[in-house]
Amino acid sequence: MAGTDQTRKMIAEGPAIVLVEPQLGENIGMVARAMANFGLVDLRLVNPRDGWPSEKARAAASRADHVIDAVTVFDDLPSAIADLHVVMATTARQRDMAKAVLTPKEAVARLRDTHDAGRRGGIVFGRERWGLENDEVALANTIVTFPVNPAFASLNIAQAVLLMSYEWMNAAVGQLKPFEQSDAPAASRADLQHLYDHLEGALDEANYFHPPDRRERMVITLRNIFADAGLSEPQIKTLRGVVAALERRWLRKKK
Amino acid sequence: MAGTDQTRKMIAEGPAIVLVEPQLGENIGMVARAMANFGLVDLRLVNPRDGWPSEKARAAASRADHVIDAVTVFDDLPSAIADLHVVMATTARQRDMAKAVLTPKEAVARLRDTHDAGRRGGIVFGRERWGLENDEVALANTIVTFPVNPAFASLNIAQAVLLMSYEWMNAAVGQLKPFEQSDAPAASRADLQHLYDHLEGALDEANYFHPPDRRERMVITLRNIFADAGLSEPQIKTLRGVVAALERRWLRKKK
Repeated sequence: MAGTDQTRKMIAEGPAIVLVEPQLGENIGMVARAMANFGLVDLRLVNPRDGWPSEKARAAASRADHVIDAVTVFDDLPSAIADLHVVMATTARQRDMAKAVLTPKEAVARLRDTHDAGRRGGIVFGRERWGLENDEVALANTIVTFPVNPAFASLNIAQAVLLMSYEWMNAAVGQLKPFEQSDAPAASRADLQHLYDHLEGALDEANYFHPPDRRERMVITLRNIFADAGLSEPQIKTLRGVVAALERRWLRKKK
Repeated sequence: MAGTDQTRKMIAEGPAIVLVEPQLGENIGMVARAMANFGLVDLRLVNPRDGWPSEKARAAASRADHVIDAVTVFDDLPSAIADLHVVMATTARQRDMAKAVLTPKEAVARLRDTHDAGRRGGIVFGRERWGLENDEVALANTIVTFPVNPAFASLNIAQAVLLMSYEWMNAAVGQLKPFEQSDAPAASRADLQHLYDHLEGALDEANYFHPPDRRERMVITLRNIFADAGLSEPQIKTLRGVVAALERRWLRKKK
């Protein structure tokens, strides 16, 4: 597993996200937020309709200010991708074009190879309404398309960016959990045996095993409930407390 | 690879998405849209703040009307998950709770097993502002958390649903491309040889190979450009047209 610094570096060096003629500042902001969620930082805009900077974009970015502040703006797509070595064009519809069509996973695998070779990759997203023009797609090495439900294929731009950013993080560092299960010590088989003994003793007192010749079978049934339940020491303690409480209640009643 | 009907069935039988006390109709709508993108259909609301139905939700769903129309509303979380067999609670922060913490991939693998065993699974999402309460998380089999950038972990609810829906489709049917590359016939090595011969003949005429003893080396350099370029028959034709045009231009000039 890569160390934290290495991890951070690999993520920060993720692909550039290029938006061609985005129309709504809100969408640019949501794109920035999605990038920040998965550690991407290089957002490039080609001719944003309402200009730049955009207060609406900053508001929608929900404090992804480091992405918004670093945005670069270009007059055309060739300028926006000039320094990149591998470029992917996202599109939801088939183009009559001799160009490989990749899934998000295939695309990030290639972008990861690009990164590992010390080169820069980028992913281009089209306008909200009609995506990329064919001449824009032609500038890319390959096409990326999303494995959506064909009956409902329209993915909004921030969601498309989110999926690519998510896959980039998966490809770069795997699915790191931001936190793990609180690790209470696992119960040993001896702890479990104490629970069995305690419970079965209490049940003997309560005449639960009836008729007596069924006891063996019933004990097995009970033990199997706990045998592979993954109980921790504190959980065994809790269960023994439960047995003790019920036992006392029953003993009190009997008096 | 599963046939289309089987695929559709498996996707339609995906996990229920349960939103606890969602505040904004827009968010419910964007959740419905994200579900529709990846074929999920069972959306359940626990006490939506602004009631139900919601015109704002329908508008934000961008025509995912089949999801909106099928929404069911419940008074509390136990009722909303009553018919389910395996339930996952999503949370962005650690809980001091003895419960497994899964990544989205691990969670959908388990939900897929649940599905394959003929049982129903569900994923619970908390309020926009503060997520799920501990007693709500405790109702779930396991916790799911997203492998986000720890420095920017806040994922909006529609994006969290999108990632789980996307992973469900990946787990259920893999990454099916809605379309493939237009498949022009691949060029044979003979096609390629004709291109080489044509190009090299034209270059001989143009005295490109100079000095002559470098010809062999220069031919190898040129051929290597095309040797593994994955050219199709029509692309070979295009390139030969280019050579012919340049050749004619040069021949015209010479006259």
